[in-house]
Amino acid sequence: MNVDATLELINPSVRSLKAYHLNPQDVEVKLNQNENPFDWPPEIKHEVAAFCESRPWNRYPDFIPAALKQALADYAGVQPDAIMVGNGSNEMLLVLLLALTGPDRPLITCQPTFTVYRLIAAGLGRDQEPVYLTPDFRFDTDALREALGRKPRAVVMLCSPNNPTGSVLSEEQLRAILDFHQGFCIVDQAYVEFGGFNAMPLLAEYPNLVVTRTFSKAFAAAGLRLGYMAGRAEVMAEINKVKLPYNINFFSDHVANVLLSHRDIIGQRVSHIVRERERVYAFLSSLGRVRAYESNANFILIRVEDKDALFAALGRSQILVRDVSAYPMLQNCLRISIGTAEENDRLMKGIARHYGASA
Amino acid sequence: MNVDATLELINPSVRSLKAYHLNPQDVEVKLNQNENPFDWPPEIKHEVAAFCESRPWNRYPDFIPAALKQALADYAGVQPDAIMVGNGSNEMLLVLLLALTGPDRPLITCQPTFTVYRLIAAGLGRDQEPVYLTPDFRFDTDALREALGRKPRAVVMLCSPNNPTGSVLSEEQLRAILDFHQGFCIVDQAYVEFGGFNAMPLLAEYPNLVVTRTFSKAFAAAGLRLGYMAGRAEVMAEINKVKLPYNINFFSDHVANVLLSHRDIIGQRVSHIVRERERVYAFLSSLGRVRAYESNANFILIRVEDKDALFAALGRSQILVRDVSAYPMLQNCLRISIGTAEENDRLMKGIARHYGASA
Repeated sequence: MNVDATLELINPSVRSLKAYHLNPQDVEVKLNQNENPFDWPPEIKHEVAAFCESRPWNRYPDFIPAALKQALADYAGVQPDAIMVGNGSNEMLLVLLLALTGPDRPLITCQPTFTVYRLIAAGLGRDQEPVYLTPDFRFDTDALREALGRKPRAVVMLCSPNNPTGSVLSEEQLRAILDFHQGFCIVDQAYVEFGGFNAMPLLAEYPNLVVTRTFSKAFAAAGLRLGYMAGRAEVMAEINKVKLPYNINFFSDHVANVLLSHRDIIGQRVSHIVRERERVYAFLSSLGRVRAYESNANFILIRVEDKDALFAALGRSQILVRDVSAYPMLQNCLRISIGTAEENDRLMKGIARHYGASA
Repeated sequence: MNVDATLELINPSVRSLKAYHLNPQDVEVKLNQNENPFDWPPEIKHEVAAFCESRPWNRYPDFIPAALKQALADYAGVQPDAIMVGNGSNEMLLVLLLALTGPDRPLITCQPTFTVYRLIAAGLGRDQEPVYLTPDFRFDTDALREALGRKPRAVVMLCSPNNPTGSVLSEEQLRAILDFHQGFCIVDQAYVEFGGFNAMPLLAEYPNLVVTRTFSKAFAAAGLRLGYMAGRAEVMAEINKVKLPYNINFFSDHVANVLLSHRDIIGQRVSHIVRERERVYAFLSSLGRVRAYESNANFILIRVEDKDALFAALGRSQILVRDVSAYPMLQNCLRISIGTAEENDRLMKGIARHYGASA
């Protein structure tokens, strides 16, 4: 057999996909991945390092990470059997879309939003339908109702706070969707610690609701690749059948437990990042040449006329932001993560210099 | 909506699955998961612990784990773009079966074999067809040719050495299958360091071959949950589109690199385990009441008339083995992992005592 004949054997839904890609770039101020700018304190890292030395590497992790599930249940205000953990919320989204989407259950996304939803559904060969946010990036509940009315068994994906716009669903909006919709509703709350309505308490009322979360943002542990989700125990038991056994390693399991015991540190840093976000937002809004969108997350979306020139100017100052201009509706837009106060100062100086203003 | 109506929205292929489950049991001699009995030396663990303290946790892992791919390529004798890494070989199998099986491409497995193949394909809703090993658990190439002749675009899954039988495909057998078959052929070589033919060199000749491997067995790192696979670069580029971005965390990435720089330690331990396997096999074969099957892996499959009684007797001696009697063809069979010399002594004493023999 030759290679071309072999490639013909791969599913067309996979072959037609464009791979997710990010060009690694070494810069001094990295504001392109919505990472938390604060590493964990050395004494906490030291405690974990000591655990790594004592824990046998040759043994499998626990079949069920019971202590972590309990700690997450306490944090989220649900029961442990409502919780599932995985390698990033990405893995949670994969098993959800694998189990919940199907021939009469397309994925409905609210565009522009996190690219990975579309990628996963496309890789699975599932039908998709976009509903668009309003021009100022609010959730368009009328348009959603119309789409869900046509596809009552669809899986609707709501990212709130939404990446990359920073906009949020209100409790009232989410309740309206859940009261109306007869299919599953996944609410990705990767950024919820930074603002907006927390959907977890609604799990008790709506069995078709699943909420996904991550350790990569407020918890400052993107290097761990740990995510989790919560849903009705009966639903989680079904989804669990397609989750691979022993999916997370002992390191993620242990670290996550340790971090959950330091919620005070997480809270202080979240407050700091939120204050910084408001400071950066006020600055951006004061510039005539930048349209900054209000955000409830740890990033701000901006629209400018000279997107490429601004991106390049920041790059020359060793500041990397994310060009999101290829997303639907986001022509000329950049997404800027909130860094430390010093990083944000450099960012603001860089933008001010580019526009001949002062920061 | 009520919970029952919600459960009706889940794919039938998922709902009909029985979840993979393992009851955790605390015992002194754990011979039930084919783990390597030797942990890594303290000085190596200490080196890694120091890395964990210095590496920022708040930052994502590298988009491409380039150093690890290079080290694995060197180890496997292929190019780095032939390599993909994931959370256990399980994740590699999931992305392979997602991309390669489809309507006219069922999964063909050689039963009895590793349960997870069947589980993943069933979760994906893919058709499956079993081909059975011969009564003494050799690969039945005639039966395979017959099945593959009927399904020329099928994906055939070959586990060699095969879990839980320990049997292997010869180079001649694998070549015969690859020369004949027009679909993909996945060879799971999780146990190859313990014996049997290494399929990696055949990748240069057969673009429809993919080989999966793991760090959980010879590499004594089941706690890491790290696996990898190798195939033609063009094929891996396609499969990569359905692999989730940032799938492995910085810990697995780093540890795997460190372990690959200590191949001498791995080799010494593999030799030790292989010697122990032959010692245990000779003992088991000397007992009239036990049928032990020759193995090329780090475990031995046995058949006895009183499987439950033997399992319970070993349990009373704090020795846990795996009951595999529910697998096709494996009535009355147990699978015993090879432990340290002391653990194997305890195992042999336990079996001898049960049968009134001497060990």
